Amino acid sequence: MNYKMIRYILGSLLMVMGALFLLPILTALIYRESCVFRFLAAAAICLLIGFLMRRNKTKNTRIYATEGYVAVALSWIVMSIFGAMPLYFSGFYPNPIDALFETVSGFTTTGATILSDVECLPKAVLIWRSFTHWIGGMGVLVFILAILPVAGGSSMHLMRAESPGPAVGKLVPKIRSTAKILYGLYIAMTILMMILLIIAGAPVFDSINLALSTAGTGGFGFLNDSAASYNSTIKIIITVFMTLFGINFNVYFFLYAGSVKAALKCEEMRVYLGIIVVFSLIIGFDIMGMYAAPGEAFIDSFFQVSSIITTTGFSTTDFDLWPSLSKSLLVLLMFIGACAGSTGGGMKVSRIIIMFKSIGKEISSITHPRIVKKIHLEYKPVEHEVLRSVNVFVMAYLFLFVGSLLIISAEGKDLVTNFTAVATTINNVGPGLSKVGPICNFGHYSNLSKLVFIFNMLAGRLELFPMLVLCTPGVWRKSRR
Amino acid sequence: MNYKMIRYILGSLLMVMGALFLLPILTALIYRESCVFRFLAAAAICLLIGFLMRRNKTKNTRIYATEGYVAVALSWIVMSIFGAMPLYFSGFYPNPIDALFETVSGFTTTGATILSDVECLPKAVLIWRSFTHWIGGMGVLVFILAILPVAGGSSMHLMRAESPGPAVGKLVPKIRSTAKILYGLYIAMTILMMILLIIAGAPVFDSINLALSTAGTGGFGFLNDSAASYNSTIKIIITVFMTLFGINFNVYFFLYAGSVKAALKCEEMRVYLGIIVVFSLIIGFDIMGMYAAPGEAFIDSFFQVSSIITTTGFSTTDFDLWPSLSKSLLVLLMFIGACAGSTGGGMKVSRIIIMFKSIGKEISSITHPRIVKKIHLEYKPVEHEVLRSVNVFVMAYLFLFVGSLLIISAEGKDLVTNFTAVATTINNVGPGLSKVGPICNFGHYSNLSKLVFIFNMLAGRLELFPMLVLCTPGVWRKSRR
Repeated sequence: MNYKMIRYILGSLLMVMGALFLLPILTALIYRESCVFRFLAAAAICLLIGFLMRRNKTKNTRIYATEGYVAVALSWIVMSIFGAMPLYFSGFYPNPIDALFETVSGFTTTGATILSDVECLPKAVLIWRSFTHWIGGMGVLVFILAILPVAGGSSMHLMRAESPGPAVGKLVPKIRSTAKILYGLYIAMTILMMILLIIAGAPVFDSINLALSTAGTGGFGFLNDSAASYNSTIKIIITVFMTLFGINFNVYFFLYAGSVKAALKCEEMRVYLGIIVVFSLIIGFDIMGMYAAPGEAFIDSFFQVSSIITTTGFSTTDFDLWPSLSKSLLVLLMFIGACAGSTGGGMKVSRIIIMFKSIGKEISSITHPRIVKKIHLEYKPVEHEVLRSVNVFVMAYLFLFVGSLLIISAEGKDLVTNFTAVATTINNVGPGLSKVGPICNFGHYSNLSKLVFIFNMLAGRLELFPMLVLCTPGVWRKSRR
Repeated sequence: MNYKMIRYILGSLLMVMGALFLLPILTALIYRESCVFRFLAAAAICLLIGFLMRRNKTKNTRIYATEGYVAVALSWIVMSIFGAMPLYFSGFYPNPIDALFETVSGFTTTGATILSDVECLPKAVLIWRSFTHWIGGMGVLVFILAILPVAGGSSMHLMRAESPGPAVGKLVPKIRSTAKILYGLYIAMTILMMILLIIAGAPVFDSINLALSTAGTGGFGFLNDSAASYNSTIKIIITVFMTLFGINFNVYFFLYAGSVKAALKCEEMRVYLGIIVVFSLIIGFDIMGMYAAPGEAFIDSFFQVSSIITTTGFSTTDFDLWPSLSKSLLVLLMFIGACAGSTGGGMKVSRIIIMFKSIGKEISSITHPRIVKKIHLEYKPVEHEVLRSVNVFVMAYLFLFVGSLLIISAEGKDLVTNFTAVATTINNVGPGLSKVGPICNFGHYSNLSKLVFIFNMLAGRLELFPMLVLCTPGVWRKSRR
């Protein structure tokens, strides 16, 4: 294990963290909030420790798959701990576990909160919460790769461990250029959304928060009713952008490169959009009886479907009151999740497609034993390695899900609360049903359960294996050059 | 498709069915019940149609994998329809879908009922319900293979499609001898249990029913309170035999062949027994507060754990009133299920072991990329084919589960009822939670939902693919010699 290199990466991360605190610091200065000193202190601590850790750079910058996973998992843990500092210091989170839960929920773009009242928080804290979504959405190590020549030739391992989806490809031959293009597209789309929201009549502060939170598919509300009080135009803008940020960024790269045809051909995107339309229509008809005008029912159903499939987690209504079918469909959407290579969570549409096609292949291998068929995705045969990784992912996912469910069941809460609490954290969605429904929060769980959720959120965002490798004792015993 | 051979197999099946009606006919004669004529009529119809279908035996007895799957799926459907006749004629099931549900629930060893009062049923109907469990437990085609030289040299395809587990092996080189040994062991253990129950003080009629139902891991009650009113000795005997019938029958074959060492070495059995002990202890402590004496709590916890993991479904208490953790553990046991090659349902312990080991292998392939490790089960490397079939099974299982859940959700029942109703039917358990809990039944569901459950019970018992192949349009278009 190349410990020196991991230390160097973590040091770089902390220095970047120090710089990222600039946004809440500026906000605090503008609104003359006293918490500015807390953020300044947090920034100073990050910069100092980061600087010390980056000294004595090792000559051996080579890192392997194991180090890639370990570095990414540790980065996210370190980032969450340091990101939680200003929240804890602010006094609004007297329990340090709560501050950590909230920050992990932010960085992993979950958006689940332990607070029942968020409107009393200082604006700097609110913007920091939204900003953690934005940072976590595209990935902080991807950001570091874009701005610092940190990991030499082996940065692919870092990118692969942090990026969601069964197979990570480079858009252009160089990792650094790929990371730059991704962040460029990300920033451009975020700003576009912000401008549209302001035009639609949202206050500037709200627009910035909504754009940051939607771009990362996070879903922290800064109003106690999440997004219920906005006008229809704003709701529609949020719906459209949630959907857009759930699409594989390869599509935007193709558009940016001018090949509209390649962008429209994307199989995963088509299935994803198809799911959104079909599910929204079914739910729209299912809930129609609860609304005065059918249009409102469909605005809410499209909003909620986009919000849950992209694992954003905003709500315009208390969907815990919806009929059984609609609730079951929403829970199913939590598991499906967004496209690979987007900022959304869940199992990812491409994995679901591969799973579906595996079954078709199995049946056809029974009925036509002599014909050897390969599974195709995006018009290319799926490699055996990818297939195996999807299978193992599904299994690890099931075991983590069940294990977590059992631990939190010891508290004695009802099955629907527990089931959806685990589903919403492991898939980085935000709200669940029953006692963790859209108008409730996670504050009533014990510290042990909150730690389980923290692990799940991190494992879900990093697609399980970085966290599982980190917990493997063998990794730490081994020393390799 | 060798239609002639499939017709011949179905004909043999119906003739055997006709003979199997002898047990309820005898019962009806002994208790002088008028329903004897209904059973006689059903037997006559089966024998007549079976005789007609078996005429003109084809010379080409060769069947391939596809025909094996189709023949098995069709056999189970035909058997269920003809087995439902006397129930429907009896007048206790005015809705034919209900009679079919009850029979499928019997043959698939599910044990879910649509009746709230079973004590009013004639004794002949009660014994027929228990007998369907016994027939379905070991598999009716295995029975036919044991007594008739039906399918020539290719009967392995029939056995493989009907027997549970990721890989079916022959105990001895000849299929027919294997089937005979299996049924011999099955009959011996059933009779042993019957005798022990009589010794422990159970009435003879109860003992026969309990033994037939337990052997098949079915769980139809013939008392309205299932097994709650029996004394502790009887409960313990049932617990032990439920556990025994959930063990891979290879173990009993080894014992029968005299190699105790080989029997004790069985990895799947050890994990299975380990799960039972650990889960029973946790649940025992969890429910202890609800009992006057701790001993009673453990008798109930061991009974219920064995009943659910073997997917029998007897109950000694209304576990729907147990705390969250215990209920979650029971739901988890429904999915784990019994050992492969037993009469129990669920996903099977060996599949869970293989899934677990796949994850371990994946992590070790990340941390030790140069070491190629193979997954072992029962001290032998697991073939790639078996691994693939486990993966595809899990995926097909998930999709079937979710699809069924969505269809029945349209009725608007609560999520826990719907979730456990699907879980308990697809895993062939019997009772679920909430409105399908141990003191409730499935009568309140609509006909559409009952048809979904019927499909799930058959798919679960036959391990998905025979039913899925049957529903593949391509199978019927193709004609092959």
